[in-house]
Amino acid sequence: MQPVKIGLIGFGCVGQGFYYALEQAQLENVSIKKIVVKNPLKERSIASNNFTYDKNEVLHDAEINVLVELIDNAEEAFTIVKTAMENGKHIVTANKKMLAIYLPELLALQKKYQVGLLYEAAVCGAIPIIQTLDRFFANEPLASITGIFNGTTNYVLTKVVQQNTSYEQALLEAQQNGFAETDPTADVQGYDALYKTVIIALHGFGVVLNHKDVLRFGINTLQQNDLKFAKENNYALKLLPTIHETDDSKITAFVLPRFITTSNVLSQVHNELNAVSIYGKVSTQHFYTGKGAGSYPTGAAVLADVAALQNNYTYTYNKLNAKTKIAFTNNAVIKVYISGNNTKYLAQFNFITELETKSNEAFTYKIGTIRITDLKNILEDNDLNSEVFVAVVD
Amino acid sequence: MQPVKIGLIGFGCVGQGFYYALEQAQLENVSIKKIVVKNPLKERSIASNNFTYDKNEVLHDAEINVLVELIDNAEEAFTIVKTAMENGKHIVTANKKMLAIYLPELLALQKKYQVGLLYEAAVCGAIPIIQTLDRFFANEPLASITGIFNGTTNYVLTKVVQQNTSYEQALLEAQQNGFAETDPTADVQGYDALYKTVIIALHGFGVVLNHKDVLRFGINTLQQNDLKFAKENNYALKLLPTIHETDDSKITAFVLPRFITTSNVLSQVHNELNAVSIYGKVSTQHFYTGKGAGSYPTGAAVLADVAALQNNYTYTYNKLNAKTKIAFTNNAVIKVYISGNNTKYLAQFNFITELETKSNEAFTYKIGTIRITDLKNILEDNDLNSEVFVAVVD
Repeated sequence: MQPVKIGLIGFGCVGQGFYYALEQAQLENVSIKKIVVKNPLKERSIASNNFTYDKNEVLHDAEINVLVELIDNAEEAFTIVKTAMENGKHIVTANKKMLAIYLPELLALQKKYQVGLLYEAAVCGAIPIIQTLDRFFANEPLASITGIFNGTTNYVLTKVVQQNTSYEQALLEAQQNGFAETDPTADVQGYDALYKTVIIALHGFGVVLNHKDVLRFGINTLQQNDLKFAKENNYALKLLPTIHETDDSKITAFVLPRFITTSNVLSQVHNELNAVSIYGKVSTQHFYTGKGAGSYPTGAAVLADVAALQNNYTYTYNKLNAKTKIAFTNNAVIKVYISGNNTKYLAQFNFITELETKSNEAFTYKIGTIRITDLKNILEDNDLNSEVFVAVVD
Repeated sequence: MQPVKIGLIGFGCVGQGFYYALEQAQLENVSIKKIVVKNPLKERSIASNNFTYDKNEVLHDAEINVLVELIDNAEEAFTIVKTAMENGKHIVTANKKMLAIYLPELLALQKKYQVGLLYEAAVCGAIPIIQTLDRFFANEPLASITGIFNGTTNYVLTKVVQQNTSYEQALLEAQQNGFAETDPTADVQGYDALYKTVIIALHGFGVVLNHKDVLRFGINTLQQNDLKFAKENNYALKLLPTIHETDDSKITAFVLPRFITTSNVLSQVHNELNAVSIYGKVSTQHFYTGKGAGSYPTGAAVLADVAALQNNYTYTYNKLNAKTKIAFTNNAVIKVYISGNNTKYLAQFNFITELETKSNEAFTYKIGTIRITDLKNILEDNDLNSEVFVAVVD
């Protein structure tokens, strides 16, 4: 590619991290021409002549060949990215929600306008998981991918389970450290992990998931009694999105907290660290960890994408384009722990096999096997899902 | 690239693994045209018409555009690879020794003949470390890289330290499982790890190391008393090649066993698993594990390279080509444990600070700080180096 002239949209936590990473790298022929921000009154860490408040200044600047999109709002981001692609600009984004929601559109836009779209920073921060899936695992069938895809919830769970910090205090700390999104709901309810799961399914299995089809449950209804259960049984608790094959031509996927034994290496991934565990059908086990959130680590991943574009690197989408297709199914059975204070709600879970029930005072938990379809249907009841906690149990 | 027609040189452990991985992947437009082997009398797992016993049949076949080199002998491999490159063929190789020894020549040949040379399988088997360093870390300055780069020694150390297997028995098992090279000397004396360190230094720091300049010591002189020291102090023992910066413009590197605390995540990397731990100056900590040896995992890495070539992917060598150069130095100080039965040899180690000495019966160990240059000079005495065991101690 010619010299890279960047239009940067957004100068928050990740935007500033990218700016810093670019300064450290001293890349030749790569420069930021303009940064688009919303608030002209906000104090900035760099000179004001770097900024504009009109995105069109970037979108219609023919000299700008790479748009780096680092804002929160998915719909707004998509409009910007779409226009930029139509104008022939390559894209680097960290917006997992935009990617997950507009995946079919974004795949079509890439083809139509023959521009690159890279998004390493959108999934697991500084773990180069998309590049690795897209290149190294391009032709190897995988049995499963799981891991810790969300830094905020992992930070909160680490503090709450291991250091007895309160949930609220832990979440506040995550926000203060710049790990949590502007609105932490997406983190704690598992949406952020879900979006990343959709992206990972694309590159790892060649499957375009509709995020609404995937069972998702977060950590926001966690109670002290659930933590007590973990301690008494020597479990660690992690939010572990999982994709695994049910047979050679089908995968299932879900985003759920999971009680794991402390011998599981994922139990040792603490704070804002993320992790990805892959099982390849030929190369067997793989495990990667790195900072999953934070200004500099995420900024470094954005920088890596910009440099990759400069080297004409784009994703192969090899599994998506493969002849043999893999389908998605919720027709699989998992073993879950379900708890709450109101047995009316707990009674609604139609276990295939109920393995254990325990009650003390107002709190009850049940362990049993259940079909994912059934669990998903039950949890779609809004009255119910705020009154129970659900986790896979190993 | 056009349809890939492969000439495969070697059909041992890795060659057969690659053959299997290719079968599993069912790649379109990729096929093996001919396999070159040495011994016409050896029984093979596939039909004999796949084989030839004359390498020239492959080297001068214009239809073959990718040569996959999977033999042991480095000099012979280099002659083959050089001729193939001169004939315009792209190369995939797993030959770490060839790469480390002929690095300057191979870099020049790539430039001269404009052909790709990929070697993911040469370093840490199925961990995509070269791709990751070359792409993801292309522009981020690194503080250090360390890890477990050799499956054989890690298998032996796991068995010997944790399961009280004898050294000889453990090594035999490693050979039977296909982890150990044909001649295990290269593994146990640390040469294999050294060659991988040279390749990692190239992509991680842009430094072309001469392998003879790098301090190297293996595990072949390990005694029961050293294992006793590890147990008494709750250490794990690993062969841990290390590259780290001494300042912004210099790195040092060495291949030494290392006593590490059991809280170090590397202590939990067992058997033939390899691991790489990277500290980036922007993105901070990274940790990757995967199978470092074995037919299928290594074969999968070879396959990934073949597919990458088909997508016109080659290494960027970005740090090698960077303006600001990093130099190599042995002028750094490390803390080491040195042991043996003959105090005459132990007395020759000129510690900067001697921290601890212990003797019982004929066995003595000393712990102290020493300059790498000095340690390297002392260990170049062949009489001495077979009589001592040396390890970094945390």
